[in-house]
Amino acid sequence: MRKEEVDTPALIVDLEILQKNIVCMAEFAKSAGVKLRPMTKSHKCPAISHLQLEAGATGIQVAKLSEGEVMEAAGIKDIFISNQVVGAPKVDRLLRLAQRAKIRIAVDSVENMREISELAEARGVKIDVLLDVDTGIRRTGVLPRGPALKLASEVAKRPGLNLMGVYTHEGIVYRAKNKEELHELATKAARDMVETADLLRNNGIEIEEVSLGSTPGAKIVGKVNGVTEIRPGAYVFNDMQQLALGVCGERDLALSLLTTVISVPANDRAICDAGSKAAGPDSCAFGAFTPPGVMPKIEQVSRLGLVRTLDGEILRDVIFDSRIGEEYGLLQAKNCHELFKVGDKIEIIPLHCCGMVFLHNEIVGIRDDEVEVIWPISARGKVS
Amino acid sequence: MRKEEVDTPALIVDLEILQKNIVCMAEFAKSAGVKLRPMTKSHKCPAISHLQLEAGATGIQVAKLSEGEVMEAAGIKDIFISNQVVGAPKVDRLLRLAQRAKIRIAVDSVENMREISELAEARGVKIDVLLDVDTGIRRTGVLPRGPALKLASEVAKRPGLNLMGVYTHEGIVYRAKNKEELHELATKAARDMVETADLLRNNGIEIEEVSLGSTPGAKIVGKVNGVTEIRPGAYVFNDMQQLALGVCGERDLALSLLTTVISVPANDRAICDAGSKAAGPDSCAFGAFTPPGVMPKIEQVSRLGLVRTLDGEILRDVIFDSRIGEEYGLLQAKNCHELFKVGDKIEIIPLHCCGMVFLHNEIVGIRDDEVEVIWPISARGKVS
Repeated sequence: MRKEEVDTPALIVDLEILQKNIVCMAEFAKSAGVKLRPMTKSHKCPAISHLQLEAGATGIQVAKLSEGEVMEAAGIKDIFISNQVVGAPKVDRLLRLAQRAKIRIAVDSVENMREISELAEARGVKIDVLLDVDTGIRRTGVLPRGPALKLASEVAKRPGLNLMGVYTHEGIVYRAKNKEELHELATKAARDMVETADLLRNNGIEIEEVSLGSTPGAKIVGKVNGVTEIRPGAYVFNDMQQLALGVCGERDLALSLLTTVISVPANDRAICDAGSKAAGPDSCAFGAFTPPGVMPKIEQVSRLGLVRTLDGEILRDVIFDSRIGEEYGLLQAKNCHELFKVGDKIEIIPLHCCGMVFLHNEIVGIRDDEVEVIWPISARGKVS
Repeated sequence: MRKEEVDTPALIVDLEILQKNIVCMAEFAKSAGVKLRPMTKSHKCPAISHLQLEAGATGIQVAKLSEGEVMEAAGIKDIFISNQVVGAPKVDRLLRLAQRAKIRIAVDSVENMREISELAEARGVKIDVLLDVDTGIRRTGVLPRGPALKLASEVAKRPGLNLMGVYTHEGIVYRAKNKEELHELATKAARDMVETADLLRNNGIEIEEVSLGSTPGAKIVGKVNGVTEIRPGAYVFNDMQQLALGVCGERDLALSLLTTVISVPANDRAICDAGSKAAGPDSCAFGAFTPPGVMPKIEQVSRLGLVRTLDGEILRDVIFDSRIGEEYGLLQAKNCHELFKVGDKIEIIPLHCCGMVFLHNEIVGIRDDEVEVIWPISARGKVS
């Protein structure tokens, strides 16, 4: 089947570009002498994790325990769950998963480490733990240096836990205004982590892993002395956000959403069949949740080329907006009657690939405009 | 199993309130002498559609063809697809579906009606059609009166189509600033539709159905003379948006998201395990996509009570924000160390129920704090 025959809306990936992105990051890690542990939340697809492992990744990172369970069942045996595993039912599942695969988890509180340690000890096992360090994103995690040392000393006391490293998501880099600031923010996060690890070591705590993770930061932090592991995710696909940050070029955009024009009710708008349930919420996020002046607004992103014809031509004067409805997408332009007719198919490049992928049941792999493979997005809906 | 034992994040519904909401709308429709055809995109769950039909609904409305296929397979045989069915593969599926159930569809363009009519005629069938009329929301649809008559005359000519009505989604009511304006906007939409139907009849086109659909508008348009059908969706659950519009009260909120506090890293924030992949994008939408001054912003909505303890106490000073990450939700308050500890469970009431439901694989039905049933959200991911 050819690309244009695929029914819509459909998530499609260019297999050539995907493979190139995967190999390029693996080669960087190898040359920088760091381990690569890709974050799977961007694709939630075991087939793509396997491609990453074949290219040289040492393991994977998952966003949630349930995502880890899906990946383990698909044959992946080295998994970092970069999220707090809280509550007896989840800890029980964690310990079972740890019997089937090499698992490491994140902790950032005494309560949580106590809970996991007690259950692990009762079953006579030790769980590998990375200390969650907050390098500026202000979600979970302890602050670097002093606070990290204090919590690390608590972890080290727990018989069911084996503190083997520190980790962060240097998400702060997404707030960079330009490439220089991106470099600065990523380097600072890496230094915070290396210094924290050294402080822990100087206090008798063995720290093997100093792990950082983000796509924009990966190739910067990977070169900082003392960093042992990078964990980028979005790089497999890339998206408008990465393009806006200068992290990828137009030829590195592997993912898009195939959609059909279903109505052209006026010359200044056409309506396609991809709304917020297919294209994702992130067109919205660009206006509302990034700090003002930091990331481009939707109109600016559109200027970079959000809408593409099936021939690869970027329609820079067309603004796509998924916020007009769950089932309806807006194509805004001055000359819609010329540009679009009912039945036309176009591609939408995601603003944020992760936000689009998890809405879909499958991803259609395309090579030379022919459908080569359809992969189930098996970890879709796995949020627990 | 008791509610507090359910692993998180989990979508939960209070079965008592759900049933009350369903019966109340059915009774209104009966008393107003209109048919009730609930929109299923709000729940995407055949079990809930069956409850609605048992309470007196005459059929259902689905947002997409694929949603209709799921519902038909679950035994529901009267389905309105309120969306343009465009392209040969979809029209083929539509005609097959029409062999198994009573189907009506939406059209708003000559190109689309030609495509469907030709395939229908070739198979010797007629497809029931409702003309999509735009009463202000400016997505798909033709404008009322003149433009509607022009298109209706085209439909009437097509041998494969049977034009049996006009319909609209009076979504314009969501822009109401207060109850009076809501009443005005809904009434105007209903009058536009009735006048359009009369104009068509006066021009020799038989119009049986004059159908309007929205939760805020349902009980207003249902009383307008000439309206034959209402199609509310969100009323089964209700949400903060309906509460803000004055359409429901706090006791009518059936749906919530059970989530666990996973970290309390500072006194002004706690982090729970429900981010944008579980709670939905719509906390975002409230800031960005509703016209300024029209719908309450997230801080205002929170004042209405977005966060609830398991005992039903509404924490009015806690702001929930799902925009800090896909896996992390922010609970913002002044005294988080007092309010929350790691492992605590709370409930998040959705800003927009439809935006939360379609992220989940199942919905946990609770009665008297005990799990009674777990329903699969079978039409999840059905966006084509």
